[in-house]
Amino acid sequence: MNKSKKIHMKTEEFRKQGHKVIDWIADYYDHVEEYPVLSQVKPGDIRSQLPDEPPIKGKSHDEIIEDMNIIMPGITHWQSPNFHAFFPCATSGPAILGDLISTGLGVNGMSWETSPACTELETHVLDWLVDMMALPKKFKSNSKGGGVIQDTASSSSLVALLTAREKASNGKSNENGANGKFIAYTSSQAHSSIEKAVKIAGIGKKNMRMINVDEHFSMKPSHLRQLIEQDLKDGLKPIFVCATVGTTSSTALDPVNEIGKICKEYDIWLHVDAAMAGPAALCEEYRFINEGLDYADSYNFNPHKWMLTNFDCSIFYVADRSQLINTMSILPEYLKNKTSDSESVFDLRDWGIPLGRRFRSLKLWQVINYYGISGLQQFIRDHMKMTKTLRLWIESNKDFEIVAPTPLTLICFRHINGNAFTERLLTRINESGKAYLTHTKLNDQFIIRFSIGQTSTTIEHLKKTWDYIVKTSREII
Amino acid sequence: MNKSKKIHMKTEEFRKQGHKVIDWIADYYDHVEEYPVLSQVKPGDIRSQLPDEPPIKGKSHDEIIEDMNIIMPGITHWQSPNFHAFFPCATSGPAILGDLISTGLGVNGMSWETSPACTELETHVLDWLVDMMALPKKFKSNSKGGGVIQDTASSSSLVALLTAREKASNGKSNENGANGKFIAYTSSQAHSSIEKAVKIAGIGKKNMRMINVDEHFSMKPSHLRQLIEQDLKDGLKPIFVCATVGTTSSTALDPVNEIGKICKEYDIWLHVDAAMAGPAALCEEYRFINEGLDYADSYNFNPHKWMLTNFDCSIFYVADRSQLINTMSILPEYLKNKTSDSESVFDLRDWGIPLGRRFRSLKLWQVINYYGISGLQQFIRDHMKMTKTLRLWIESNKDFEIVAPTPLTLICFRHINGNAFTERLLTRINESGKAYLTHTKLNDQFIIRFSIGQTSTTIEHLKKTWDYIVKTSREII
Repeated sequence: MNKSKKIHMKTEEFRKQGHKVIDWIADYYDHVEEYPVLSQVKPGDIRSQLPDEPPIKGKSHDEIIEDMNIIMPGITHWQSPNFHAFFPCATSGPAILGDLISTGLGVNGMSWETSPACTELETHVLDWLVDMMALPKKFKSNSKGGGVIQDTASSSSLVALLTAREKASNGKSNENGANGKFIAYTSSQAHSSIEKAVKIAGIGKKNMRMINVDEHFSMKPSHLRQLIEQDLKDGLKPIFVCATVGTTSSTALDPVNEIGKICKEYDIWLHVDAAMAGPAALCEEYRFINEGLDYADSYNFNPHKWMLTNFDCSIFYVADRSQLINTMSILPEYLKNKTSDSESVFDLRDWGIPLGRRFRSLKLWQVINYYGISGLQQFIRDHMKMTKTLRLWIESNKDFEIVAPTPLTLICFRHINGNAFTERLLTRINESGKAYLTHTKLNDQFIIRFSIGQTSTTIEHLKKTWDYIVKTSREII
Repeated sequence: MNKSKKIHMKTEEFRKQGHKVIDWIADYYDHVEEYPVLSQVKPGDIRSQLPDEPPIKGKSHDEIIEDMNIIMPGITHWQSPNFHAFFPCATSGPAILGDLISTGLGVNGMSWETSPACTELETHVLDWLVDMMALPKKFKSNSKGGGVIQDTASSSSLVALLTAREKASNGKSNENGANGKFIAYTSSQAHSSIEKAVKIAGIGKKNMRMINVDEHFSMKPSHLRQLIEQDLKDGLKPIFVCATVGTTSSTALDPVNEIGKICKEYDIWLHVDAAMAGPAALCEEYRFINEGLDYADSYNFNPHKWMLTNFDCSIFYVADRSQLINTMSILPEYLKNKTSDSESVFDLRDWGIPLGRRFRSLKLWQVINYYGISGLQQFIRDHMKMTKTLRLWIESNKDFEIVAPTPLTLICFRHINGNAFTERLLTRINESGKAYLTHTKLNDQFIIRFSIGQTSTTIEHLKKTWDYIVKTSREII
């Protein structure tokens, strides 16, 4: 983009087209409820409408926006107030505009020098969040620890595991078959990304222990201890425990305090995955989710899930940043510079896997500034309150049963007619386009997950969706 | 964002503020040349201006935009026409707007169902690119292979290595010390992310072989063969070779054809990293960079470097997608759905590390549509031509010497007064704010890298910067 060059979009054209795109997005949000939440297309429907060959000659931007009509039927509307699948990806106006500024500036914050503001704002805002959420001070940059933005919780867990591995092997994980002896532990309800991380790190599925859960789907510390003892007897080396605060299936809370004590006793890295639940700690009354974090070596939560900051934005804290940097840092000549040599700054490329880094703290900073702590708290409280009301409705209907505790904003329920019926009901709801919910299995039962957390969801939306679920279940009978 | 809810930005406000942000970005590009290219702040300068405490009460969006005045001095201007450091991150109007639409829609394309258009457009556009760049057909989705967008080349290389490791160990890399026997090879000029990937994968630096380069900084196939033979004799298992087309230090081209033959002979995975160079193949006359790709198991290039698509957008092709999916796929109950079960679609979460995925193909699609093949070709040709002219200027000045071939758009040169002088010269240039260039070392010489590739760079910009370099060098003397 520039003022004059021929093939590029001129800034005047950018203004005009940019205003149109902004209006297009505003119109989208004004009408988002009119689309089927789950895309109703069949495999190949979108592709078959795209030209086989790319254009030789460029198109006007007006035509390009027109072409969005091909794309839209293939969108599943994550920003619909009736999106209750998986966990939310709740975005907001200031987040979209903050990300737009970041895209516009087009900087790559791989090291401090390549945009000092990118590194310093990230560190600053992540320090703010430690205070806002009453997390342990060891995660702040003025201690030995610090925070960094990763793309997803998958990457955060992987980075935690790699750091644990390098710490346990003193950087020699591949020697003398060390990797083959390392053992990682998590509950059978933990996110699949933990298993993926164990595979990536070369530790292997065979050396992954799935700890049993109690009747609330929380990890049993007694079983963890038992397996650690057994592994030690077998000459293996326990190096990593991932506790989950708010599991994906049912938002179960692992007893981090008890787990932490065991990790301390056996000198095992404790990572706490609170990808969805984390932002609840913005409110004093929900800080039970922070219990035991004093034992954590690393901690993760995702503002892109439930803190109004668009995807991707996953926060990763570590209690000892030197261990993380030792794991991730490789310094070739072409990346050296005087400021980095002086060690007076952080180079965040050494805090994660990719070298290049977007200016992601900008959107997070602008979201916090726009809502303020009080606005973010109200957002969380509104969802907690709505969830309570919805839960009462479900409880009071004798055709349905709730099958797991609801500590946060996910309700797990089923129809009393059993698995096949519940599955059929869910399919009908999703095919209607009126709402999108997903399922899980708990104790071999097919469960509908009703996840609340979208920005624009109101109690009226929940009422409408719940009524439709009840009505549909009666129709199926 | 919605029409009415209290704490959130209303769509009418979003329109107003969005137009302002668009104009802010347009103004930025209109004036980008007036900023010092390399940020001139000292460590802590930006942070010290940020409030210690996050706000309790939210701010207006007008104030938030005002606050960008704190940030701007801490920006290094990657989009300046005088940015010649590292490699470019050339963006464009249609890319920014395409990414904005993606941010606005806020979808997460982790599986086909969660937004069919996100998966199908990505596959379609990456098939287009195979044709546009005359890459081997095995990388297209209608063969056994396919393409996927990763965040960076670091991740692409890692994913390639992991797939090679799982293939070589039949999924049992952690058993019987297998990881400790695996050997990876790349040239001493390859990108540091290869070494990082080897570390992450648990293969370890000890098992990483740095192959010697010839006088053009290209990998010596004879040395590769020699080390492979030695490793085999020592009972080790060569599993991975990364060849580079356009190294970071000097855009050296490894002889992929010869390397590929060796990989085929010994059954070793060949990954080709063309992160910067790749887009040159849009033009028929530069397709020498594709030489030997028929041997490649995987291939990577970054449209976010030199194809007008903003960061992050790194393309990863694989010749046999089943090997990639076997490496990356973990399927928990809560991610299952009927369409995925039918295997009629791709679930791109199984093609990389993160579960969550932005709708990144949208910006790439819109860039290709806006410029057309011919516009993109002209963009590449303009840069190649400018580089040639600049090289003539440098060559004709007897105070400077060019120390490496210039196959693409990076010129490596030094002042004849030696290392200390050249370093001092570079520091002065960067401190002036008039241009930003970075350095490397080649044969123990301190080298200035003059990298061309920014969207708005013209021959006049290059002339001005070159004149300034010459003038400054005389002043230092």
